[in-house]
Amino acid sequence: MKKFEDLGFCKVDTDREQRTGYPEVIYGEGKSADHISQIMSRLIDHHEKVMVTRLSKEKALSLQETFPQVKYDETSRILLYGEPARRYPGEILVLCAGTSDLFVAEEAALTAEWMGCKVKRVYDVGVAGIDRLLAHREEITKASVLIVVAGMEGALPSVVGGMVKRPVIAVPTSVGYGAHLEGLTPLLSMLTSCASGMSVVNIDNGFGAAYQAALILQLASEGGENEKPLP
Amino acid sequence: MKKFEDLGFCKVDTDREQRTGYPEVIYGEGKSADHISQIMSRLIDHHEKVMVTRLSKEKALSLQETFPQVKYDETSRILLYGEPARRYPGEILVLCAGTSDLFVAEEAALTAEWMGCKVKRVYDVGVAGIDRLLAHREEITKASVLIVVAGMEGALPSVVGGMVKRPVIAVPTSVGYGAHLEGLTPLLSMLTSCASGMSVVNIDNGFGAAYQAALILQLASEGGENEKPLP
Amino acid sequence: MKKFEDLGFCKVDTDREQRTGYPEVIYGEGKSADHISQIMSRLIDHHEKVMVTRLSKEKALSLQETFPQVKYDETSRILLYGEPARRYPGEILVLCAGTSDLFVAEEAALTAEWMGCKVKRVYDVGVAGIDRLLAHREEITKASVLIVVAGMEGALPSVVGGMVKRPVIAVPTSVGYGAHLEGLTPLLSMLTSCASGMSVVNIDNGFGAAYQAALILQLASEGGENEKPLP
Amino acid sequence: MKKFEDLGFCKVDTDREQRTGYPEVIYGEGKSADHISQIMSRLIDHHEKVMVTRLSKEKALSLQETFPQVKYDETSRILLYGEPARRYPGEILVLCAGTSDLFVAEEAALTAEWMGCKVKRVYDVGVAGIDRLLAHREEITKASVLIVVAGMEGALPSVVGGMVKRPVIAVPTSVGYGAHLEGLTPLLSMLTSCASGMSVVNIDNGFGAAYQAALILQLASEGGENEKPLP
Amino acid sequence: MKKFEDLGFCKVDTDREQRTGYPEVIYGEGKSADHISQIMSRLIDHHEKVMVTRLSKEKALSLQETFPQVKYDETSRILLYGEPARRYPGEILVLCAGTSDLFVAEEAALTAEWMGCKVKRVYDVGVAGIDRLLAHREEITKASVLIVVAGMEGALPSVVGGMVKRPVIAVPTSVGYGAHLEGLTPLLSMLTSCASGMSVVNIDNGFGAAYQAALILQLASEGGENEKPLP
Amino acid sequence: MKKFEDLGFCKVDTDREQRTGYPEVIYGEGKSADHISQIMSRLIDHHEKVMVTRLSKEKALSLQETFPQVKYDETSRILLYGEPARRYPGEILVLCAGTSDLFVAEEAALTAEWMGCKVKRVYDVGVAGIDRLLAHREEITKASVLIVVAGMEGALPSVVGGMVKRPVIAVPTSVGYGAHLEGLTPLLSMLTSCASGMSVVNIDNGFGAAYQAALILQLASEGGENEKPLP
Amino acid sequence: MKKFEDLGFCKVDTDREQRTGYPEVIYGEGKSADHISQIMSRLIDHHEKVMVTRLSKEKALSLQETFPQVKYDETSRILLYGEPARRYPGEILVLCAGTSDLFVAEEAALTAEWMGCKVKRVYDVGVAGIDRLLAHREEITKASVLIVVAGMEGALPSVVGGMVKRPVIAVPTSVGYGAHLEGLTPLLSMLTSCASGMSVVNIDNGFGAAYQAALILQLASEGGENEKPLP
Amino acid sequence: MKKFEDLGFCKVDTDREQRTGYPEVIYGEGKSADHISQIMSRLIDHHEKVMVTRLSKEKALSLQETFPQVKYDETSRILLYGEPARRYPGEILVLCAGTSDLFVAEEAALTAEWMGCKVKRVYDVGVAGIDRLLAHREEITKASVLIVVAGMEGALPSVVGGMVKRPVIAVPTSVGYGAHLEGLTPLLSMLTSCASGMSVVNIDNGFGAAYQAALILQLASEGGENEKPLP
Repeated sequence: MKKFEDLGFCKVDTDREQRTGYPEVIYGEGKSADHISQIMSRLIDHHEKVMVTRLSKEKALSLQETFPQVKYDETSRILLYGEPARRYPGEILVLCAGTSDLFVAEEAALTAEWMGCKVKRVYDVGVAGIDRLLAHREEITKASVLIVVAGMEGALPSVVGGMVKRPVIAVPTSVGYGAHLEGLTPLLSMLTSCASGMSVVNIDNGFGAAYQAALILQLASEGGENEKPLP
Repeated sequence: MKKFEDLGFCKVDTDREQRTGYPEVIYGEGKSADHISQIMSRLIDHHEKVMVTRLSKEKALSLQETFPQVKYDETSRILLYGEPARRYPGEILVLCAGTSDLFVAEEAALTAEWMGCKVKRVYDVGVAGIDRLLAHREEITKASVLIVVAGMEGALPSVVGGMVKRPVIAVPTSVGYGAHLEGLTPLLSMLTSCASGMSVVNIDNGFGAAYQAALILQLASEGGENEKPLP
Repeated sequence: MKKFEDLGFCKVDTDREQRTGYPEVIYGEGKSADHISQIMSRLIDHHEKVMVTRLSKEKALSLQETFPQVKYDETSRILLYGEPARRYPGEILVLCAGTSDLFVAEEAALTAEWMGCKVKRVYDVGVAGIDRLLAHREEITKASVLIVVAGMEGALPSVVGGMVKRPVIAVPTSVGYGAHLEGLTPLLSMLTSCASGMSVVNIDNGFGAAYQAALILQLASEGGENEKPLP
Repeated sequence: MKKFEDLGFCKVDTDREQRTGYPEVIYGEGKSADHISQIMSRLIDHHEKVMVTRLSKEKALSLQETFPQVKYDETSRILLYGEPARRYPGEILVLCAGTSDLFVAEEAALTAEWMGCKVKRVYDVGVAGIDRLLAHREEITKASVLIVVAGMEGALPSVVGGMVKRPVIAVPTSVGYGAHLEGLTPLLSMLTSCASGMSVVNIDNGFGAAYQAALILQLASEGGENEKPLP
Repeated sequence: MKKFEDLGFCKVDTDREQRTGYPEVIYGEGKSADHISQIMSRLIDHHEKVMVTRLSKEKALSLQETFPQVKYDETSRILLYGEPARRYPGEILVLCAGTSDLFVAEEAALTAEWMGCKVKRVYDVGVAGIDRLLAHREEITKASVLIVVAGMEGALPSVVGGMVKRPVIAVPTSVGYGAHLEGLTPLLSMLTSCASGMSVVNIDNGFGAAYQAALILQLASEGGENEKPLP
Repeated sequence: MKKFEDLGFCKVDTDREQRTGYPEVIYGEGKSADHISQIMSRLIDHHEKVMVTRLSKEKALSLQETFPQVKYDETSRILLYGEPARRYPGEILVLCAGTSDLFVAEEAALTAEWMGCKVKRVYDVGVAGIDRLLAHREEITKASVLIVVAGMEGALPSVVGGMVKRPVIAVPTSVGYGAHLEGLTPLLSMLTSCASGMSVVNIDNGFGAAYQAALILQLASEGGENEKPLP
Repeated sequence: MKKFEDLGFCKVDTDREQRTGYPEVIYGEGKSADHISQIMSRLIDHHEKVMVTRLSKEKALSLQETFPQVKYDETSRILLYGEPARRYPGEILVLCAGTSDLFVAEEAALTAEWMGCKVKRVYDVGVAGIDRLLAHREEITKASVLIVVAGMEGALPSVVGGMVKRPVIAVPTSVGYGAHLEGLTPLLSMLTSCASGMSVVNIDNGFGAAYQAALILQLASEGGENEKPLP
Repeated sequence: MKKFEDLGFCKVDTDREQRTGYPEVIYGEGKSADHISQIMSRLIDHHEKVMVTRLSKEKALSLQETFPQVKYDETSRILLYGEPARRYPGEILVLCAGTSDLFVAEEAALTAEWMGCKVKRVYDVGVAGIDRLLAHREEITKASVLIVVAGMEGALPSVVGGMVKRPVIAVPTSVGYGAHLEGLTPLLSMLTSCASGMSVVNIDNGFGAAYQAALILQLASEGGENEKPLP
């Protein structure tokens, strides 16, 4: 039984949706528009939907010529073919500390929506203006899963983590300068957080955070049990 | 309305169980047996159960004199007062790569059990013997949430992450030498994993991983919705 | 004009009080009890008061035999000869995130008192329990200068910095593990804080923070002007 | 009571001047000229003055078309709308080690002036020519607060710190090469300074140093007391 | 006896083939097309074959004008003059984790072929899809020497190393972002691998890995003995 | 078909000799003498020989009581049960730079002998006395595989690598101070070596280097071909 | 007595030649051609000679229009006004490991010549071809002071340091990739060298090495004594 | 012609004095008293004098039993057999910043004396008390070579370097805490110094600095020329 199509330069995992619930996602950085186009064709054939992340505007414009139906979001640099449909209960709340962190927050928000989740956004609520954050206390405590995006010193997830009884996924961003070390500082800072129930993904990895958040809601939608093992 | 008791040297958060579902946990490192004893008394008064983590054998013996009912586990260095009871559906699978990672794996396993989860353990399945890991494929794909503990190069979570459609929480350990950098290498390595749906906690933080895993099952047990905001 | 006494192994700066308002402070780490004793004698001769920081209990006990009037504080590891007297208006607020950060917070508090400042302490108010911090909002906004001590991810100064219009001096501590990197993580994190009006001192340097805070109140007590240049 | 205006892409903190004495400052890096223009409009409406930092010449030219009254300083990359007026007693002295550190020194000087302080500049006095520095001893000892800017090995603040009884705020710069590590070396070096009464801000953060210096003079102008807590 | 030709700007080691079995290889980065051309001429005179690595397309085009017989491979950026001929028994297997690691994998593959080895390629078999890797178990266990190329977390060599009884040479790549640290993370990760029989070369150094692999097959082809010492 | 024995605390890989030619080796660090004893029993049952590495003298003495036949080498901290027998052609040359590197060099030498290789030792030939090294030129060029051990700046492998046409495996050691960074400096230094045909293992990993060297001679002894895939 | 001319943007140290034997040298990086031109004018007025280092070709061409007598060397990026004259006995030998290190080696060589030293060059003698180095043994042992330039693993100074009884100044270069860390690896490596009598300057700092070498010959030319203290 | 004696565990370089002017020095750390004793015997036989550095008091006491004539200095941890005699003109000045740096400063001073140099000491002159340093201006400018020892931020060499026209060798020490990074911070700081004519040795390497200083005076005593190459 063949589980992937071999394009020579890569092996397209066409079996993935059946196995995990989601078709393969294309990471656009470092791939040529032509290669992306070939992979998209295969994935559209199998799943009728595709998501491409980290895609430059130039490549997006070129792909729009081949696939006129795609939508491209400049902030998150995500390109979508096909419409997302809500599949799970609950709500993912995406918070971000500053306006410069938006590109990561939107990567997370669009990914979660594309995977079938309802998403709420609360942006520009960095901890140095704690009242702006506390003004959203109700939305924060109502969320099912929280994705907290922050650059600079990365303190936001610790504060949010202490306010909720739900899982928090922290995303450090590369936004900052000097001692910020291109995101390494908030990354390490989030990992040593004094808040419980929080985990961390790579710098700028909004996609990864949203992916895990969606898996959590998927699990919740199935009642937490996992009767049948995967094939 | 008073939310904590002030012991002078610290503020005991006695309101926590009502707010988040769990009483405060005592981090034993750097606290004297006497201080721990005082905090335990307060928490027992309020909740009738207590967990202390990172507790040396010496302090544990001293605390057992005051609280004869407590149980102490030398591997995980956890001390428990009161019995855990299963509260959630599903199952948390704790995997670890080598026998030296056991102290972290057991911290995770005991924490998850204490929080009300069913836990299964699969130990000593490092990736350099891939067949030992694959022999557990069924248990792996059946788990609701997976905690994957690994020292050395920290490769196990990537392999496991690719085998499941459930959330994976990776825990790097301080077990290794030289280029291992006391755990920094597997930490960074896990953060750059090519597997989707995976997040990471601090080095040796088995407690933190289990805490988040339990929150996920708690959410699942409530169907993913969060109707009533926290007070 | 001779400005210091030469003890062979060091040069005691006996002119310092006249020049800066404060006699020399002895850094106890790495000096033998005998050397400290000799320096203390000279400083007592000139100023009738002495402060020794980072002093082990063993050395303190030995010095108490020579100087029965000294007081030793085990938490901050500070030894004092002579009584501090309040000299300046205003109030320094020392906050700390966790009970394990106390040794640094007390080094700051005792130093500031010894230099003539009124000090208020608010301890165990880490950001993961934001309500515990906010319960002290009035004391926080009333303070003249704030010293904020935090280990782990070091997020407390950012939150406090956003609540006040007064100078905030942040002190990272070596309390934490793993990605905490013995204090480097909160140090870098505080340096990239999104709060304005905040500066940072070395890891565990409660003394340095208090010293600067006292200089600020000294300046304030003189109306901010500096009519006569130092000799 | 509404404390900020929501522009969608950000929340403008229009209440800030009343709360802290200063309107919000716009950090220009990473914001489009159009976004800056919108925020400026709101801030001008409320405060009749605005400061934008880290602004490229290109964006400055574009903003000058919309706001012909603004002034742009190419060295510090600061754009100002409205005139600063001296509000506090005393004097801030800005020193810098080399001519290449000027862009940071001027960011500090212009910020302090804009916040109402009198500023004196002493530039190109690196420690390798100690006599050039000592030629300014009188100005140095007369200053109320000192901002000391240095790249390379960052030694200047230590020398200056030992000459004064006033607070010193050290600013490392990104000027250097090789072992300089883009400013990390002088940053760490300043943090381990043997001078007392000194604190440090992020690499190139002239703005942050000046902001704290101004808060110190503001406090001094109010006599160090803080009778009425902030609302 | 003269062992190299001095071109002024460098010393061409024309004696190398006789001494080690291989002529000198030209590292193209940082050398002008003109310099490369001069060195090529000398090497062609002596050996009738040349390999240039890390050569930009621009320089390659310019060299093709002087040496019309050369072949240039854009993926590996290798330029060859002369045909490789198989000289040794056995087979080198080059594996790579992702399609973005191809440029390194091909540098290794082409180098090994040029040195006289038979090479087999198995690409895009990262550990997060373990079944894709296991589908090649037979080829993997049949290989004489294995070169395993991986970016991201660099886990592939550990898994492969545990499957074979042959030497494994691991090559980390600079493909990744954030905590990947431009390849430092997989480099350190591979060095702390739990698999035995594995060694590591510098980031992106496909050439170095292939060179050692070829030396191993050369040794094997001579039966492991080394009767006659080099001159 | 069962491939390992489960001792509860670990899985003993008793099938390993058949699969790879060598029984499992016990890494002694972090294992109790009792655990090691149990694993040894199983391995002796299956293979009649055992090697334990990184074993403290205390544990060795305790194990000698249970297994009187074992031999313990204090320099390498290796314990052996059973006699090694030469199985392969050729010769492994172990070189080390300083006398303090001996513990690593001997770990390599004893491991290689135990695996069936003939080993020659050339010690204390650091590059700062190049003539001492060159005095061994004949032995160096005659070796089949070279293991080069060096602490400090780790320069020896580069010089040796340039003298031979055989594979060189470099082993950095933790011997040094200050900028040596506990072995990180020679590790990185060896990885950027200008010599071709060289690869590197972890700091102090004499075992790993010898293991790969033995695999190379094993391959050579089989003529480089690998006709029958592993089961 | 005025010791420098103040140009506003910098203070030209016109007294320097009298004080130290050498006029000020202009570091060209980060200074505009116009600023350099102004400083040159002053220095020419006082000393009739000038050296500018790290000067781009563009700025050099522009300066040549103002000062037609200047000479510019593209390799070292040094611009000279006035002729150097030999002033000291002895000879400085500049060695470099690879052809890519030439730009640093030439910065050292030209600086030393400009300061009045006789310079000999031995280039492309990296340790991986030890015989090429040893072929220069006579020149090496005859040198008065040795400047040894190396990128990659930076091993050359250790070998040279062991061959001579004269001071060796090591210069790491930024030439390399991956684990080379932009020169940090050879820098640290040289600092932990096992050779005695060697010291190190910053990455690529050929100027600094030559400056110290010239001071050594200057001292030697005065017989090592320093009768008259500087004014 | 035999150039060293082989003791089995090491090769004693008995030819060294003839070749370089100095017998081999024994680095005591990591060698047993017995091994040191054997090497000392050989060196005494050949040279009638020996120096051992980094020797613990325990080993020193043990060696004093075998060699009653030796002298041991506890501060520098140096053991000497035989008397040093002045051989060169000029004077080496050893400066140190703080009293805690004494152990390094004395290692330098005793080494230089043992090698035949006149040494002057100026201690406890850190830059934070610039007047204490300037009080020694005459001694500083009169010195032939300067060794400047400093921990903390390592600023002293930059100031001293700017005061003299003689070579300065900077020695960072491991004295400090937190951001000091066990000496890495002053090491990097000294390497990026703005003073010309300065080079740097490893952390705490007083021996290395003195060794180079002595070579400089040796060269000066020979007039800078090096007529006869070494054998």
